Amino acid sequence: MAAIEGIFVPNIVPYDAQGRIAEDELRRIIRWLVSQGVTGFYPNGSMGEFIRLSYEERKRVLKIVVEEAAGKPILAGAAEPNVDLVLEMCRYCADLGCRAVSITGPYYYKLSQESIEQYFREIAAKSPIDIMVYNIPVFANEISIPVLKRLALDCPRIIGTKDTSKDMCRFQMTLHEIKRQRPDFSVLIGWEELLCSALFMGADGGTLSSAGVVPEVVMKIYNEARKGNWAEAKRVQYMLIDLFALMVGAPNFPEGFRAGYELRGFKAGHARFPLSAGEQEVIETMRGRLACLLTDAGFAEAAGECRRAPAAATGAPNRVDVENLVREVMSQMLALQK
Amino acid sequence: MAAIEGIFVPNIVPYDAQGRIAEDELRRIIRWLVSQGVTGFYPNGSMGEFIRLSYEERKRVLKIVVEEAAGKPILAGAAEPNVDLVLEMCRYCADLGCRAVSITGPYYYKLSQESIEQYFREIAAKSPIDIMVYNIPVFANEISIPVLKRLALDCPRIIGTKDTSKDMCRFQMTLHEIKRQRPDFSVLIGWEELLCSALFMGADGGTLSSAGVVPEVVMKIYNEARKGNWAEAKRVQYMLIDLFALMVGAPNFPEGFRAGYELRGFKAGHARFPLSAGEQEVIETMRGRLACLLTDAGFAEAAGECRRAPAAATGAPNRVDVENLVREVMSQMLALQK
Amino acid sequence: MAAIEGIFVPNIVPYDAQGRIAEDELRRIIRWLVSQGVTGFYPNGSMGEFIRLSYEERKRVLKIVVEEAAGKPILAGAAEPNVDLVLEMCRYCADLGCRAVSITGPYYYKLSQESIEQYFREIAAKSPIDIMVYNIPVFANEISIPVLKRLALDCPRIIGTKDTSKDMCRFQMTLHEIKRQRPDFSVLIGWEELLCSALFMGADGGTLSSAGVVPEVVMKIYNEARKGNWAEAKRVQYMLIDLFALMVGAPNFPEGFRAGYELRGFKAGHARFPLSAGEQEVIETMRGRLACLLTDAGFAEAAGECRRAPAAATGAPNRVDVENLVREVMSQMLALQK
Amino acid sequence: MAAIEGIFVPNIVPYDAQGRIAEDELRRIIRWLVSQGVTGFYPNGSMGEFIRLSYEERKRVLKIVVEEAAGKPILAGAAEPNVDLVLEMCRYCADLGCRAVSITGPYYYKLSQESIEQYFREIAAKSPIDIMVYNIPVFANEISIPVLKRLALDCPRIIGTKDTSKDMCRFQMTLHEIKRQRPDFSVLIGWEELLCSALFMGADGGTLSSAGVVPEVVMKIYNEARKGNWAEAKRVQYMLIDLFALMVGAPNFPEGFRAGYELRGFKAGHARFPLSAGEQEVIETMRGRLACLLTDAGFAEAAGECRRAPAAATGAPNRVDVENLVREVMSQMLALQK
Repeated sequence: MAAIEGIFVPNIVPYDAQGRIAEDELRRIIRWLVSQGVTGFYPNGSMGEFIRLSYEERKRVLKIVVEEAAGKPILAGAAEPNVDLVLEMCRYCADLGCRAVSITGPYYYKLSQESIEQYFREIAAKSPIDIMVYNIPVFANEISIPVLKRLALDCPRIIGTKDTSKDMCRFQMTLHEIKRQRPDFSVLIGWEELLCSALFMGADGGTLSSAGVVPEVVMKIYNEARKGNWAEAKRVQYMLIDLFALMVGAPNFPEGFRAGYELRGFKAGHARFPLSAGEQEVIETMRGRLACLLTDAGFAEAAGECRRAPAAATGAPNRVDVENLVREVMSQMLALQK
Repeated sequence: MAAIEGIFVPNIVPYDAQGRIAEDELRRIIRWLVSQGVTGFYPNGSMGEFIRLSYEERKRVLKIVVEEAAGKPILAGAAEPNVDLVLEMCRYCADLGCRAVSITGPYYYKLSQESIEQYFREIAAKSPIDIMVYNIPVFANEISIPVLKRLALDCPRIIGTKDTSKDMCRFQMTLHEIKRQRPDFSVLIGWEELLCSALFMGADGGTLSSAGVVPEVVMKIYNEARKGNWAEAKRVQYMLIDLFALMVGAPNFPEGFRAGYELRGFKAGHARFPLSAGEQEVIETMRGRLACLLTDAGFAEAAGECRRAPAAATGAPNRVDVENLVREVMSQMLALQK
Repeated sequence: MAAIEGIFVPNIVPYDAQGRIAEDELRRIIRWLVSQGVTGFYPNGSMGEFIRLSYEERKRVLKIVVEEAAGKPILAGAAEPNVDLVLEMCRYCADLGCRAVSITGPYYYKLSQESIEQYFREIAAKSPIDIMVYNIPVFANEISIPVLKRLALDCPRIIGTKDTSKDMCRFQMTLHEIKRQRPDFSVLIGWEELLCSALFMGADGGTLSSAGVVPEVVMKIYNEARKGNWAEAKRVQYMLIDLFALMVGAPNFPEGFRAGYELRGFKAGHARFPLSAGEQEVIETMRGRLACLLTDAGFAEAAGECRRAPAAATGAPNRVDVENLVREVMSQMLALQK
Repeated sequence: MAAIEGIFVPNIVPYDAQGRIAEDELRRIIRWLVSQGVTGFYPNGSMGEFIRLSYEERKRVLKIVVEEAAGKPILAGAAEPNVDLVLEMCRYCADLGCRAVSITGPYYYKLSQESIEQYFREIAAKSPIDIMVYNIPVFANEISIPVLKRLALDCPRIIGTKDTSKDMCRFQMTLHEIKRQRPDFSVLIGWEELLCSALFMGADGGTLSSAGVVPEVVMKIYNEARKGNWAEAKRVQYMLIDLFALMVGAPNFPEGFRAGYELRGFKAGHARFPLSAGEQEVIETMRGRLACLLTDAGFAEAAGECRRAPAAATGAPNRVDVENLVREVMSQMLALQK
């Protein structure tokens, strides 16, 4: 069987005014992304705030994505809090016809590599659907290369990995230590900045949050790379780096990406996690700058919102900015004293 | 109103052979702890594996603990994945008559201090029950002292903190910066090794996992400290350090504590998280050593299981040990190369 | 032989307008500290910027301190960059009549615990003078408790430790695992915030930078603790925490402490490491606040410089403050994107 | 002026039986590397143990390298402990005709980005020779991208950077944020695993420790990349990854590289930092494996020392191995308890 390849979108979940999933808008987003030529979808990932949804909501999101994906392959997040619930979600995904599930390392508790290996082995032994191992050490326990290698070589159900570690050395080791021995093992990059380098070294593709906001940009890099047009791929890669920097740098992830969807014409709604007044202001400023970048990149729908001058560059800084900055720095000074 | 004070037990959840909550055994544990004179309980904390239970299971655990607690005060874990679910759990706890809920910083996503402050403010504004802020930075976002101070001074519902940071400097700052200005703010230590030092500097008490295994030892330290018998409190503190070291150092937290409950005569069951064969062996060895410590401490029920000689000290190391060690060290060597 | 005990001052090195060691002022500082009743001195520690001095300058500082110390015991920093140079410095210290040398873990390279143990064993085998092991993990390789224990039990020349890890759990383990077995092993605390707690749990004393600025405060805590007047010791401890927080939180360590010496009437000179204009401003502000704390603590010589209102609290923030804050926060945003 | 480009070797310093610099062997190493076609040299870097040499020894090493380099450009390490000594070393390097000096962020103390910027500005204002900013965050304070950008755009003397952060995202940002605006700014990669990716994205070259051991391999990657033969460059890159993994993973850096020089026919001598008996054994084992890799790579001189079977794979592990492993794991267990 061939390795899974291409660009998979970890979609955002839009909410309505009451904080419920805005199902129609979610459908509209998925249909738009299909029309943009993305390879497939990755619902219930970190971008989809899986951890802030209830179990039933996660199933609902998944069902909607499958219904609108026009047959494109789905890698479905299934990082439930214990093995039984993971397996129940695996069965649900299999029944819906997903291509595979994606499972992060366990989160909250810090576990040994041996525990983590045993966790994936137990799931792999019983899952009715193929599994991608999702490494995202900033949020969940890292899965080491030796563990991933043993899983890849021993467990037929484990058919690939998504790597969001931002660590190019690790990514290359995954190719070198694992894919070289098992060519059908899919190695996907999960960090925008490394897309071009990863494809150059042999990645099968990526699952990238930005692909939900600027599918044109991400698909351009992927398609040019596949054609061997590396100069063009690299040129567009740096455009993606700038867009990504603004969205990932905004406070209260994934709020920066939510702003991006809004600028592309979708009603993403208010966050499920509260935003302070100061943070809302920061996101507004960031949104104005993002609109300019999008406009520069040729996406005209955002032109009207472009605000080039950052607050810091104008004469008088506003009061809230300064207060927030002072608070932040004071808290750092205090932290230093610990 | 007086600050909450005393020793609260974050109980374990025992499971039956099918992995379901062993309700009768849970009741027996709580009744035994009541008979040992603990101040109160802290169900659905990290020790209680709240994150591996379903929402309904968490409610069930809570109900059982309340029923068996003989009127002792309950601080109930309510760290649900979004604000609406937290508030729903708060209402449930209020209806059951709990003294307060305890809420960790948000987990999984890394959030700014400003986001975390807003999260607690929103909950505090709507909760029908008092709130303890539970700081456990090894598992969840840290709540900084400046944020905790503003919350304590602004929000009447926030009436205390449990600190599991292992950071004595931070603990003292909590007393100095917050409790000095709001004497009814309860400051509880959540790390066994610091119990005696924390009480000496002014802590109101503690919530300590070991208090579920050796309530006699923990209550002795607390009671002697309250009477000003510091020499005796310090002597017993070091006994607690040794017991705690074995239980917290075992693989796959909270399995070390589960072994402790077993040695005290309870059927704690198999873990909800899988254990490798190598880990089971390590826990068996640790259990033998723990039994000796318990026997030395005067708890005779464990005497028959005491195994003093660690595997490493005997002539021939066993094969599994060596393989595991080699695997571990090799993985470290590889990690160094990253 | 009895364990070394008391309060040892890691003195600052004052510079003249040309950046040379201001020898007369250094002599004046040592004489003043002798008159204040400190137990002894610790030249060429982190506070004394040993790493920014030349080898010959370190010898010169040491000679001056010995000459002015009026026979009080000297623990001399001897963390030279290789074993031969360490031993040469040990011989020099022995010839001068120092009580012991103090040696940090190796710095710059990250070394295994086994390498670090071998390093200390080799020095201990050849040193003509007793050795304190100085654990300061924020700057140099940490020395683990098992390594320190083996060194303490195997090497007669290694007679104590100074711990600047800010880790009370570690400090207690040092007492529990090592001092219990070797009572003449001296365990000194090297972090101001923990002085009182450490003495309560059994520390032999401390080496504390603040003791050079406010010897009255530090000696008061030590002396009251030795007399068993814990309530008074704890009261003064919190005064020390506030003073220390300002000095250690200032940019470009040890500049905050240098400001403290200036406020006590010494000419500490300009730093050997450059300060930006923004940092100089921050230190000026901090100095005004420190002067108030010192005045409140009864040290009248600083009263004229007391400036209570921090810049941030007044109406208009100044331009430089804002620019620096903005720069800092922007750099953090970018760092988040990495 | 064109950016500095190519492969610069951070040479090792060989010692004689008395621990002195083995000058003849150093000369022989440099002449051999010249004959292998390396671009230039980087004496007194981390590989050259600059921190374990005396000031006079560093000057001596530099003089020897210049004398033997046959006119090839020298980037000379000049990370002395204070600004005056840095500038004195800069003048020395200028007099010797070096191309530039390379300066790490300050080490030991943790400094703010503002302090670090001021440090480089002061040096840049007075240096008589061009400066490379050497970012090696594992050993010294990191220099942030915003600071590096301001330095690059404001200071004519600062003409490039060497990046040993292992962070490909940062490396790309250096190209994107700085080199795009100042094309003559030289951006060199300092981490073997990233050589090929970095060249692909636009690096000017690298300074790589392995280039002293296998100049043929490193120059092959560089030369093929420069010709656009990326498939071949990538193939050889993975060979370099394996060689590098063994050398960098050995205990007590840079001992693994010293073993590599020995296998290529040089007498590198004993380390200046002590090695335990256990570490010597580990290095011996690693040396046997490295000899095999070198033989496989076509470097026949090491064939006689090739030992393929790692100790762990044979029947009985030896006693010392097991003891060391047990000690390591026990120390980890204890560390977990902190």
